[in-house]
Amino acid sequence: MKTVKTAAEMRGIVREAKRDGKSIALVPTMGYFHEGHLSLIREARKKCDVLIVSIFVNPTQFDPSEDYERYPRDLNRDEVIAERGKVDFIFAPDVSEMYSSGYSTFVEVEGLSKVMCGKNRPAHFRGVTTVVAKLFNLIEPDTAYFGQKDAQQVVIIKKMVSDLNMGVEIHVCPTVREKDGLAMSSRNAYLNEEERKAATVLYRALLKAKDEIIRGDKLLKFIRKEITEMIESEKLARIDYITIVDPENLQEIAGIDKPVLIAIAVWIGKTRLIDNIIVNL
Amino acid sequence: MKTVKTAAEMRGIVREAKRDGKSIALVPTMGYFHEGHLSLIREARKKCDVLIVSIFVNPTQFDPSEDYERYPRDLNRDEVIAERGKVDFIFAPDVSEMYSSGYSTFVEVEGLSKVMCGKNRPAHFRGVTTVVAKLFNLIEPDTAYFGQKDAQQVVIIKKMVSDLNMGVEIHVCPTVREKDGLAMSSRNAYLNEEERKAATVLYRALLKAKDEIIRGDKLLKFIRKEITEMIESEKLARIDYITIVDPENLQEIAGIDKPVLIAIAVWIGKTRLIDNIIVNL
Repeated sequence: MKTVKTAAEMRGIVREAKRDGKSIALVPTMGYFHEGHLSLIREARKKCDVLIVSIFVNPTQFDPSEDYERYPRDLNRDEVIAERGKVDFIFAPDVSEMYSSGYSTFVEVEGLSKVMCGKNRPAHFRGVTTVVAKLFNLIEPDTAYFGQKDAQQVVIIKKMVSDLNMGVEIHVCPTVREKDGLAMSSRNAYLNEEERKAATVLYRALLKAKDEIIRGDKLLKFIRKEITEMIESEKLARIDYITIVDPENLQEIAGIDKPVLIAIAVWIGKTRLIDNIIVNL
Repeated sequence: MKTVKTAAEMRGIVREAKRDGKSIALVPTMGYFHEGHLSLIREARKKCDVLIVSIFVNPTQFDPSEDYERYPRDLNRDEVIAERGKVDFIFAPDVSEMYSSGYSTFVEVEGLSKVMCGKNRPAHFRGVTTVVAKLFNLIEPDTAYFGQKDAQQVVIIKKMVSDLNMGVEIHVCPTVREKDGLAMSSRNAYLNEEERKAATVLYRALLKAKDEIIRGDKLLKFIRKEITEMIESEKLARIDYITIVDPENLQEIAGIDKPVLIAIAVWIGKTRLIDNIIVNL
C-alpha cells in the first residue's frame, strides 16, 4: 500500500492503471476509520483491481461554526487499518493541494442541499459535492462507495452523478452499528460516557417508529410524535430535525403508503449525531 | 461520420475508444458552423484519434430575456460541414436528454462569472460551466478546443478544469475574422446590411487601442477613452462594456505594463457582439 499526497501523482497512478485496463474503486472518507469505513473497504475490495481510499477532512463542507479544527484525525492509524484491508492507495492530500489559493469553483445540487441537514448547514452539501466531484475527476473511479448512514448525502451524490453525466457507479452500503445500536461515526469520539449512553436514543426511536409503522400506524403525525417523545425523554438529547420522506428524492410525503426514509439529527450535548432507517412496506 | 443523439450511446462509443487506447478530442459548439468552428475542428483533427464535435444550443446559458429561441440552428448543414472536416462523431442531444425533468445540479466558477459578460448576464457562465462539465464527464476527452473570441469563457473554463481536477487539456485557437475584421460569430446572422457594416467598429476600435499602446500610450484612462469615442462615432453601436484586464485571470489592472486583454461587448441594433484582443508588450 502506498500513501499519495499530491493530485499529480494520484493522476499518474490512475492513468497507468487505466492504460492497463484495470478497474478502479474509490472509497471517499474523512479518515479516523471505524467499522463503517471498513465495511465500505471490504465491499469495494471484492469488485475492483485497484482500490483507492481518500482521506481528506474537507474544510468546505464544514460551516464556520462547526468542528473542522477538532474533527478527529489519525493518518498513521488509518494507514495500518487500510493496509490490513488490502487497500492499494491512500490519497491523503493537504488542504492546499485540494484548494489552491484563489480556489473558486463549486458544484451544487440545488434544492436537495437545503433540506434536512442542509437547513442549518447551508454550505455543507455544496462542500461535499464539490470535493466528491474533484475526487471523481482526479481518480476516475468505475465505482465509488458510500454509507447509508449519510442518507441525504447518498441521494445528493447520486443526483449529482446523474445530472452531471459522471461515469461512476455509486454503491451504498448499510449503516454499521455498535452492539447497542448506535450508528458508527467518527464524531462518536466526542461523546463522554454519559452522552455515549444517551446517544442510543436515536436508533431506539427509529426502531420504535419502524415497529409502529409495521404494526399498522401509518399516520405521519403519530409517528413523528412517537419519535419526538422518545428522544425528548432523554435529557441530554435535543432534536435538530425529524423527517419522514421518500428515500429516492427526499421529498416530503403526505402519508405512509410506500417505502419511507425516517431520518433524524439529534444533539447529544455538544455533538450532533444523525441516523436513519428505511421502512419497506 | 455518425450523429449521436443520446448520452448512453455517446458513452458507449467513448468507452470503446478508450479501451482501444485511442485519444479523444472534443470541440464543444452550439452549431451553425462558421470558419471559427472549422479552425477548431481542423486543429483538433491533427492531434487525436477520435474527434467528437458537440452541437447543443444550451438553454441554461441564456438568460430569460435572451435569444435562446431564435439562436440560429441548422444541423443538416453542420453535418455536411463536419463530415468534410473529418469529424468522427457529432453529439447532438435534445434538451431533454441533457436536462431531464427535475434537473438541479450546477457548476459555478465564482467571481470570474460575474464580471464583464457576467455582469448583465448573471446565469450565463454558470450555464456554460455546467454544460461543459457534463460534456467532459460524458465524453472524457483528452483535449478540448475553444476559441479565443470568447475570452472570458476560456479563462473560466480553464479555471474550472484546474479547480475541479478535470483531466482534460484545454486548447485555445485564435479568433477567426471576416475580411473586414469582424470576428466570426453565429450571431452575425442577425445583422442586416447596415448593421453588418457598423459591426466592423468593434475590431477597428480594438486595433486602434493596440496601436496606441504599442506607440507608447500606457494610460488606461486614455486607451479606454479612445475605444469609447470610436465606438460612439458609429451611430448603430451602443457600448455594453469595455474592459482592460489581465488575460490570465481577468483582474482589473492599475496600468499597462505587461500583456493585457482588451475585451468589449457592443450592441449593434438588437444584436450584442463581443470581441477582444491581447496586446503583448
